[in-house]
Amino acid sequence: MNIGIMGSGKVGKALGAWAAKCEFNVAFTSRTDATAVAAARAAGHGAKAVDAAGLVQESDLILLTLPYGEIADALAPLQNHLIGKVLVDVSNPITEDHRSLTIGHTTSGAEEIASRFPMARVVKAFNAVFAEVYASQKPRIDGRLISVFYAADDAAAKGSVRDLIARLGFDPINAGPLQNARYLEPLSLLNIHLGRVLGFGTRIGFSLLRE
Amino acid sequence: MNIGIMGSGKVGKALGAWAAKCEFNVAFTSRTDATAVAAARAAGHGAKAVDAAGLVQESDLILLTLPYGEIADALAPLQNHLIGKVLVDVSNPITEDHRSLTIGHTTSGAEEIASRFPMARVVKAFNAVFAEVYASQKPRIDGRLISVFYAADDAAAKGSVRDLIARLGFDPINAGPLQNARYLEPLSLLNIHLGRVLGFGTRIGFSLLRE
Repeated sequence: MNIGIMGSGKVGKALGAWAAKCEFNVAFTSRTDATAVAAARAAGHGAKAVDAAGLVQESDLILLTLPYGEIADALAPLQNHLIGKVLVDVSNPITEDHRSLTIGHTTSGAEEIASRFPMARVVKAFNAVFAEVYASQKPRIDGRLISVFYAADDAAAKGSVRDLIARLGFDPINAGPLQNARYLEPLSLLNIHLGRVLGFGTRIGFSLLRE
Repeated sequence: MNIGIMGSGKVGKALGAWAAKCEFNVAFTSRTDATAVAAARAAGHGAKAVDAAGLVQESDLILLTLPYGEIADALAPLQNHLIGKVLVDVSNPITEDHRSLTIGHTTSGAEEIASRFPMARVVKAFNAVFAEVYASQKPRIDGRLISVFYAADDAAAKGSVRDLIARLGFDPINAGPLQNARYLEPLSLLNIHLGRVLGFGTRIGFSLLRE
C-alpha cells in the first residue's frame, strides 16, 4: 500500500516515518520541497519526497496532515487527480489558541472537506493522538493499546484506513459515518487540553474499554 | 457528604444507588413522587425520596440527571436555594434521535446552565458513561478503570466531585474549566454511537492512558 503524506510537519513526519518502518511505501510532499526531503530522509526505509501531483497519483491513502485551513488550497489544483482517492483527514479545525473548534456540531472539518471534494473518499482518522506518540512509534501506553478512531461513509476506504491503523499497532475503532467527525474533532481538543494545559503531557491517549 | 439526585431516571437511579452503597447519604427527587420513592427503595442503604426544595437545601452535591431540556424549568423555582450550591451536570444537550448535539462548539449545555444559574457552581461530570455501567456498580472494564472526566471553574466544587468519582471507584480526570464541557458532551455522543449503533454495547468506557 502506498501512503502519501501531504504536509510534512510534526504529525506528518512522525506518522510517515512509522508507516515507512512498517514497510509501507511512503511519500512526503510539502509546500517547500526541502521540508518533504528532510521528512523522507528522517523516515528512511525507502520513503521519498515527491511533488503534490505525483503524490496524489501514486498513493492509495493520502494523509492530510496540514493545518485544516490550508487543506482546500492545497487540494484545489489537484482536483482532477482526486477521483476515487482516499483522503485521510488528520486535521482539526482549531482556533489559533488551540482552545476551540472553528466549526460547530452541525458540521466538522472532515465533512467540509468531503463536501468541497466530492470526487474523493474522505476518512477522519488519527486526529486525536499527539504527534509525540506517533514519533515514539509505540502504540501502547501503560501496557494498553491506544484506540485510534476512524469515521467515513465509504466502506472500502474505511477498510484501508483500519488496516493502516492496525499495522501501526494501534487499536482501530470504527466510529461510524463521516458525520461523526463532529465527535472526533472535539476529542482532539480534549486531548490537547489534557496534555498541554492540565499537565498530563503528550504521552497520553484514549482507549475504548470493552469486554 | 449528602448527594442529591435530581431526576430519578435510568442514569440517576443507577448513580444514586451506587453512591448510597458507597455510604453517601443519598436523596432522590423527581417530578412524580412515586418515581423518587421507587428509586430510593431500589437503592436501599438509607437512600430517601424528598421534594426538590428539600433536596437542594440538604445536598452538598446535586446531580442533574434530567434531560437537558428540562433542567432550567426544574431549577427555576429553586433559585433562592441555589446560592453556592454545587450542581453536577450529567446531562447532554442531545437531539431526539441521539445523533447530534443541540448546542455548538461556542458553548455547551453545562455553560448554559451556569449562565442561567450564576449563583450555583456548575461541574460537568459523569455524562459520557452509559447508565448500564452505573447500574453494574463496576468501574472497571477489561481489567482497567473507566476514566470519568469532570470540568468546572470552581476548585472546591471540582474537589468534591473528584472525591465522589474516586469513591465510586472510577479514575477521576480533571478536564479543565467548565468551557471544556464543549468537548465532554461530544465524547458522550461518540460513546452512544459506539454503544448503540456500532455494536459495542453499553458496557464500554473511555480510559485516559498515561504513564
